Amino acid sequence: MPQLAPHIFELLHNQGVQHAFGIPGDFALTLYDALAESKIKPIVMTHEPCAGFAADAYARIRGLGLAVVTYSVGGLNMVNAVAGAYAEKSPLVVLSGSPGVRERRERDLLHHKVKTFDTQRRVYEEVSLYAKTLDNPTTADADIHRALDYAITFKRPVYLEIPRDMVYAEIEEAEHQPPPIKRTDSDALTEAIAETLEMLNRAASPVMLVGVEVHRFWLQEKIVMLAEKLGVPVCATMLGKSVFPEGHPQYIGVYNGEVGHPYVRNIVEESDCLLMLGAFMTDFNLGLFSAHLNPASTIYVTSERIAIKHHEYPNVRLEDFITALCSSKELPHHNPSGITPMKPRVAPANGKMSMSSLLYELNQFIDSNTVVVTDAGDVLFAADDIQTQEGTSFLCPAFYASMGFGVPSAIGAQLADPFRRAIALVGDGAFQMTGMELLTAKRLELNPIVIVVNNSSFASLRMMGHQNADFVNISSINYAEFAKILGGQGFVIETAQQLRQAFHLARESDTFSILDVRISPDDLSPASQRVAYLFAKTLKG
Amino acid sequence: MPQLAPHIFELLHNQGVQHAFGIPGDFALTLYDALAESKIKPIVMTHEPCAGFAADAYARIRGLGLAVVTYSVGGLNMVNAVAGAYAEKSPLVVLSGSPGVRERRERDLLHHKVKTFDTQRRVYEEVSLYAKTLDNPTTADADIHRALDYAITFKRPVYLEIPRDMVYAEIEEAEHQPPPIKRTDSDALTEAIAETLEMLNRAASPVMLVGVEVHRFWLQEKIVMLAEKLGVPVCATMLGKSVFPEGHPQYIGVYNGEVGHPYVRNIVEESDCLLMLGAFMTDFNLGLFSAHLNPASTIYVTSERIAIKHHEYPNVRLEDFITALCSSKELPHHNPSGITPMKPRVAPANGKMSMSSLLYELNQFIDSNTVVVTDAGDVLFAADDIQTQEGTSFLCPAFYASMGFGVPSAIGAQLADPFRRAIALVGDGAFQMTGMELLTAKRLELNPIVIVVNNSSFASLRMMGHQNADFVNISSINYAEFAKILGGQGFVIETAQQLRQAFHLARESDTFSILDVRISPDDLSPASQRVAYLFAKTLKG
Repeated sequence: MPQLAPHIFELLHNQGVQHAFGIPGDFALTLYDALAESKIKPIVMTHEPCAGFAADAYARIRGLGLAVVTYSVGGLNMVNAVAGAYAEKSPLVVLSGSPGVRERRERDLLHHKVKTFDTQRRVYEEVSLYAKTLDNPTTADADIHRALDYAITFKRPVYLEIPRDMVYAEIEEAEHQPPPIKRTDSDALTEAIAETLEMLNRAASPVMLVGVEVHRFWLQEKIVMLAEKLGVPVCATMLGKSVFPEGHPQYIGVYNGEVGHPYVRNIVEESDCLLMLGAFMTDFNLGLFSAHLNPASTIYVTSERIAIKHHEYPNVRLEDFITALCSSKELPHHNPSGITPMKPRVAPANGKMSMSSLLYELNQFIDSNTVVVTDAGDVLFAADDIQTQEGTSFLCPAFYASMGFGVPSAIGAQLADPFRRAIALVGDGAFQMTGMELLTAKRLELNPIVIVVNNSSFASLRMMGHQNADFVNISSINYAEFAKILGGQGFVIETAQQLRQAFHLARESDTFSILDVRISPDDLSPASQRVAYLFAKTLKG
Repeated sequence: MPQLAPHIFELLHNQGVQHAFGIPGDFALTLYDALAESKIKPIVMTHEPCAGFAADAYARIRGLGLAVVTYSVGGLNMVNAVAGAYAEKSPLVVLSGSPGVRERRERDLLHHKVKTFDTQRRVYEEVSLYAKTLDNPTTADADIHRALDYAITFKRPVYLEIPRDMVYAEIEEAEHQPPPIKRTDSDALTEAIAETLEMLNRAASPVMLVGVEVHRFWLQEKIVMLAEKLGVPVCATMLGKSVFPEGHPQYIGVYNGEVGHPYVRNIVEESDCLLMLGAFMTDFNLGLFSAHLNPASTIYVTSERIAIKHHEYPNVRLEDFITALCSSKELPHHNPSGITPMKPRVAPANGKMSMSSLLYELNQFIDSNTVVVTDAGDVLFAADDIQTQEGTSFLCPAFYASMGFGVPSAIGAQLADPFRRAIALVGDGAFQMTGMELLTAKRLELNPIVIVVNNSSFASLRMMGHQNADFVNISSINYAEFAKILGGQGFVIETAQQLRQAFHLARESDTFSILDVRISPDDLSPASQRVAYLFAKTLKG
């Protein structure tokens, strides 16, 4: 009979998980012993919020991520990061050590306890798809399989709590039951595809708008094939940025209502057939609801809902729809030559750094061996004008929008894909939250490049009519010196020339680099300037 | 009619709250406007976990603390700190901004959302005594009063969520209903006091063991009076450390079973009448259950339960019991001259620093103008041998034991009591979690002294038979240099001489100081050595 924790680690390793992010603690000490004995490498982080973000980023790239924490002081310190993974559909497995089954019976006031021994599991029920304490050797295996199946199938976090006296418990093997998923009805699929083809064939100006599920369900190649067959312009949501290669000649940029590029907006909103694939209608994806999309000309396809115009196809799966559409012989072909590929609204500049010139230089630096991560805040909106090259080489918290995501995610990303250099673009406020995690990059000999937008403020709050509020200003330090203390290299950047120089040195470096880019608090990325304008307009109206 | 948020801030200010800890965000922007206009000063921290710890420490000292955060990315990032406040009975009020009532109706996918708009409130139900969304102007005032009454009466966190369109909503004033508390039955009180007096009068070796509720219910002066009338030895639990002045001649130290000082243990466990006041039977208070207390000779008095021997008095309140006992004319008087006052097991040493010599020098430095805060880990157990002077001049997470508590709590403590200098004793692991918060100390011109035990490991895990595990080792940096980057002063300490010198310079400084004390990973505080011994014994047995 298999032993509980070793069995879990074996199953996870079989799914491609090679690293586990977390921090040990006394209730997780035996669990860490089992982890250290497994084929998965424990990555001890400095702070649980960072462990959550790193494991989330790892999951986004690898298809599954793992965080291993201790009871309450560990697990409850990671709730925000796991909530973000839930909101943005990242398949993250959380394992938490906890008080033993026997000691729970015998003792009431064990340290770390909040209300009851179930407190942490109950909290996790609110931020995960499946939360279970593995206290029964007879049912544990079924619970474990269900958790992993749910994470992989629905792309959401799951939570398993392992009492410390259960870590090496022998468990009964259960028959593996597949998760309850909707199955595609082939007649419904045929009808949906026929209707889609009819709309596409009748349309004069069809457009594809792709979202994050294309990445989560590994449909990137099919989407590119479909786009090339159709010859239509392709844009992405913010959360889905780079699921379609941003260097592709048919790619026109991120669609984001009035916040985004007017060219993209016009093409999307004036299209007579909008094919939305794996994209969610969030406020941040819709330019703070400034989007004008007409359902009557929209084909909306996600794992949760497939709708054409105003009617739904409840019995068709995303993957089956896309596969069938892609292989159809009746796809129309438009001439792609009229498409103007993505054009970031940024320009080179000499003299003092601006967000625009920072983004310009960043775009010059990005290549097929980089993965770009942004944090929340101005840098998130700024992503509108970042142009990556390859597909799936960009990560950001474009819906949950938690500050602090950037630095730990760069670490998770670089472990998940060691062939790509991670570049994190983070605000100074966010850096103060989780920048200390670069200690871990140093220890692991990872060399991410962290660009800190040093403007001494929460710029994205400042721009919402709060230029004069004290509470949007934050302390400033020399982040370049900070890098050196942590064992990396640091650069103070005040001009584009210095930035190019720093990028060059960072590229050659084996240690992490911090680029401390001095930006005026009054400067904003082009997209954030649109947000500020929209905000002011809303206030007036 | 009062406006919702201004009304809350007014009520809180009337209760002595002068500072609010948190970070603004877009859903909390209007709430921060109202805060900035109120008499309460917003203290913008670097990270929400720190805001929670700072507000918790403030609450412990002031009797009420306040954290103001934004939705999900703020509130869910503070769950651990609030859980700690719950576990250790700290009256902390959490206010969170959130999506407006109207926009919740109109829109589904607003950024920061997890499962439903209720996710955060549901999570807070698990870690607070009262959690409510103030979305109704008719009932809001009653909800607000109930929350504040619960926090103040039961010494636990409460949570109020304020949709952003409700911040300035005019609300109806409600009649103030007192919270449901048990009332003292005077006959029951008379009987309980008579029984207690009989036990005390018959006893040859009565002892007082005091706990944290003495502080929470502001009974410190009465307890000293009672102790002096009785002339008996007094000890404290770890969580209750310093509620009784540690410089008092009757004070013998912390009782902690086999972990604590043998003198204290013998006196307590051989006593024929143990008067436990406001003390909880947690594992950490009971020397990891190595305590041997005899219920037949125990009088156990807390706000939750009063028991004499094996029977209970459900209708007697803690405060009434202590007040009545204190003013009784029939208290026996023992001769206190035989009591050996607290004697830390530490000694001065030259040469390389050890935990023992660090604690010795710290004890020399502490005076009536300091408040000492420890973090979790070895430094928490170490507190056994720290001797403060005044009452209520020590804070620690002795039950919930979350790492990262130390630095932010020092900031909260110094704002709560500006006449006392905060000294934080933190491990290097904990410092890496929340040490960045010293940026806030710098901005506020606070000058706490932070002692970092720099031993490149999680020493308290190492000592649990994991000396050779990789995952208990952490990165080391020069914390003295780190201090300078953040704008404070730093000292590398390798000898007692350097430590005394640094203490001297830190005392004179207007900025914060970091004392980077280099300790061998194999060294432990005297109390942790006992824990390690107990742990090894348990493993064998």
